Amino acid sequence: MLKAVIDAEAIKDAVEAVSSLVDEVKFAISEKGLELKAVDPANVAMVSLKVDSSAFQFFKATPGEIGIDLVRLSDLLSMADRGESVSLELDEESHKLKIGVGSLSYTLSLIDPSAIRKEPRIPELDLPAHVTLTGAELRRAVKAAEKVSDHVVLGVADDMFYMEAKGDIDALKLTIPSSELLGLKPGQARSLFSLDYLSDMSKSIGKASEVKLELGVDYPLRIGFRIKEVEISYLLAPRIEQE
Amino acid sequence: MLKAVIDAEAIKDAVEAVSSLVDEVKFAISEKGLELKAVDPANVAMVSLKVDSSAFQFFKATPGEIGIDLVRLSDLLSMADRGESVSLELDEESHKLKIGVGSLSYTLSLIDPSAIRKEPRIPELDLPAHVTLTGAELRRAVKAAEKVSDHVVLGVADDMFYMEAKGDIDALKLTIPSSELLGLKPGQARSLFSLDYLSDMSKSIGKASEVKLELGVDYPLRIGFRIKEVEISYLLAPRIEQE
Amino acid sequence: MLKAVIDAEAIKDAVEAVSSLVDEVKFAISEKGLELKAVDPANVAMVSLKVDSSAFQFFKATPGEIGIDLVRLSDLLSMADRGESVSLELDEESHKLKIGVGSLSYTLSLIDPSAIRKEPRIPELDLPAHVTLTGAELRRAVKAAEKVSDHVVLGVADDMFYMEAKGDIDALKLTIPSSELLGLKPGQARSLFSLDYLSDMSKSIGKASEVKLELGVDYPLRIGFRIKEVEISYLLAPRIEQE
Repeated sequence: MLKAVIDAEAIKDAVEAVSSLVDEVKFAISEKGLELKAVDPANVAMVSLKVDSSAFQFFKATPGEIGIDLVRLSDLLSMADRGESVSLELDEESHKLKIGVGSLSYTLSLIDPSAIRKEPRIPELDLPAHVTLTGAELRRAVKAAEKVSDHVVLGVADDMFYMEAKGDIDALKLTIPSSELLGLKPGQARSLFSLDYLSDMSKSIGKASEVKLELGVDYPLRIGFRIKEVEISYLLAPRIEQE
Repeated sequence: MLKAVIDAEAIKDAVEAVSSLVDEVKFAISEKGLELKAVDPANVAMVSLKVDSSAFQFFKATPGEIGIDLVRLSDLLSMADRGESVSLELDEESHKLKIGVGSLSYTLSLIDPSAIRKEPRIPELDLPAHVTLTGAELRRAVKAAEKVSDHVVLGVADDMFYMEAKGDIDALKLTIPSSELLGLKPGQARSLFSLDYLSDMSKSIGKASEVKLELGVDYPLRIGFRIKEVEISYLLAPRIEQE
Repeated sequence: MLKAVIDAEAIKDAVEAVSSLVDEVKFAISEKGLELKAVDPANVAMVSLKVDSSAFQFFKATPGEIGIDLVRLSDLLSMADRGESVSLELDEESHKLKIGVGSLSYTLSLIDPSAIRKEPRIPELDLPAHVTLTGAELRRAVKAAEKVSDHVVLGVADDMFYMEAKGDIDALKLTIPSSELLGLKPGQARSLFSLDYLSDMSKSIGKASEVKLELGVDYPLRIGFRIKEVEISYLLAPRIEQE
């Protein structure tokens, strides 16, 4: 059972953060709110998302699981304007989700959860270096790197966070000293990542006032942030750096 | 003879309302203003338009008829900025219309009116149910329906205006009680319409503060509204509803 | 040697003014600033550009020459926001230009100047008629002419600046009396020009508060203007007018 009302922007932001990686997801419903974990088709990136019941204007639920086509959902949500509320109501018998926006009421057919790819087990990693900066800053760095290459090195050295992108002809280097970061826990860290993934993720990341990167040497990158009351975490596998 | 000056927005809005259905039209000129009636190539929708002489900053005319390529006219009018005036002067000898915008002066070749499709006879229909709402509200409903289907049912029941769109998987329902409408005359009404046409029309409709829908059971829909001092009326044939 | 800091908008505007005609250029560096002259691949239009050392927030240079891919440079500069500064530093040994924007630092490979087309000799022309108007006005006239034709006549007659464009069906005439111009030196002038070139140039021209046109009869057109402290001059060859 699910009956909930939420700010249109909050649910749009949540859907966007996930739909950059996967099209169909299983939401776990509980008294505490909504939750999901998903891995992209190429097994390179994972996303986990938590929308706490306190993020809703109204929330009443019993535990369950629903499968949703995020492309359809995101298309329907585009009808909701900034400042509007969206109501969600699960009709368990007909396997449909009723979505209300003002006087409009959509009926979205659900997907059988067993037809959706199994939830990934998010590995427990103790990444040595932590960097905290604004989402806008990270987004800009990713955009700049895309101008010269498909891959980017992220690392920490000498109390600085750095990013390097090398193209066939041109190169880009970004260095931000800890004094200009929101936070830095120094540690051995230098890994190469695909800009395709970072670019898709950075649309959501750019909206967060604070983003925490956790890094190691040739280790996955964890990117944690909140948009309004939605908690989002990405895990991105490293690429092998060829010298 | 025609010599007239009009606000750029007013003539742009008038041209847009018609060019969503037809490319070439005959304007009837008289002392009272400009008028036209046209039917779309597929005979599904009609439009009638009246620009009263009082809508012009200056208007002097003797009765006549001119044929205009609305695509060309609309392209030329795009050069006029909001707040500017547009002057129109008919050169009967050369069959040209002089269009002045600031220091620019266009010469638009007219089309022989006999080469343009004959004006339709607008049928007199006494449609039982009337619904008055804002243009923005109707436009939004049409946009929402397009998300799920190509067709939409409009109807009146139990003191409510409703709209239904059913896709292969998802469905949409809109209901607006009379208390939230600008006006409602209840009556038997439920007809199916093509969203293609409603979508084209809704660009103009969305600009009107008040739109009147007249409806029956499997009967055409009449949509009447004014933008500034331009009076516009659409008539849209119903589709057969298959259960 | 070159070390310089400049307002992002100023260098973006300068690059845009040139890149509408050519992709690769040679900048001449001197104590006085940066300078370039280039001709488009079809030999129809020339551009000359001067960025005086006073236009820079910091400028230190010894004479030299560098070859730059303007497409790459313009792409990198798009990362700089309005109000930001851009630092330029020439690394002569590695033949690279370091471009700094905030905490980002790009390394742009230079092109061997000998591989770039030779600088044109800008002909000395004493054009009889001079017309001064706002860049926005000229840009609008060019856009209006594009609606009806590929070519445009510019001329001066009876204390007026005029523009004529004739399409297969429609025609456009613009006339601005000297009283509505910023300046007019009357003289024999009427020449035909390609709108393709004028359209490309008008993106930059539109930003200038004052543009000076120098014209003759079937003679090239010189267009001189300043954007901020960047001095730009175009020379456009006439087309043969066929009656």
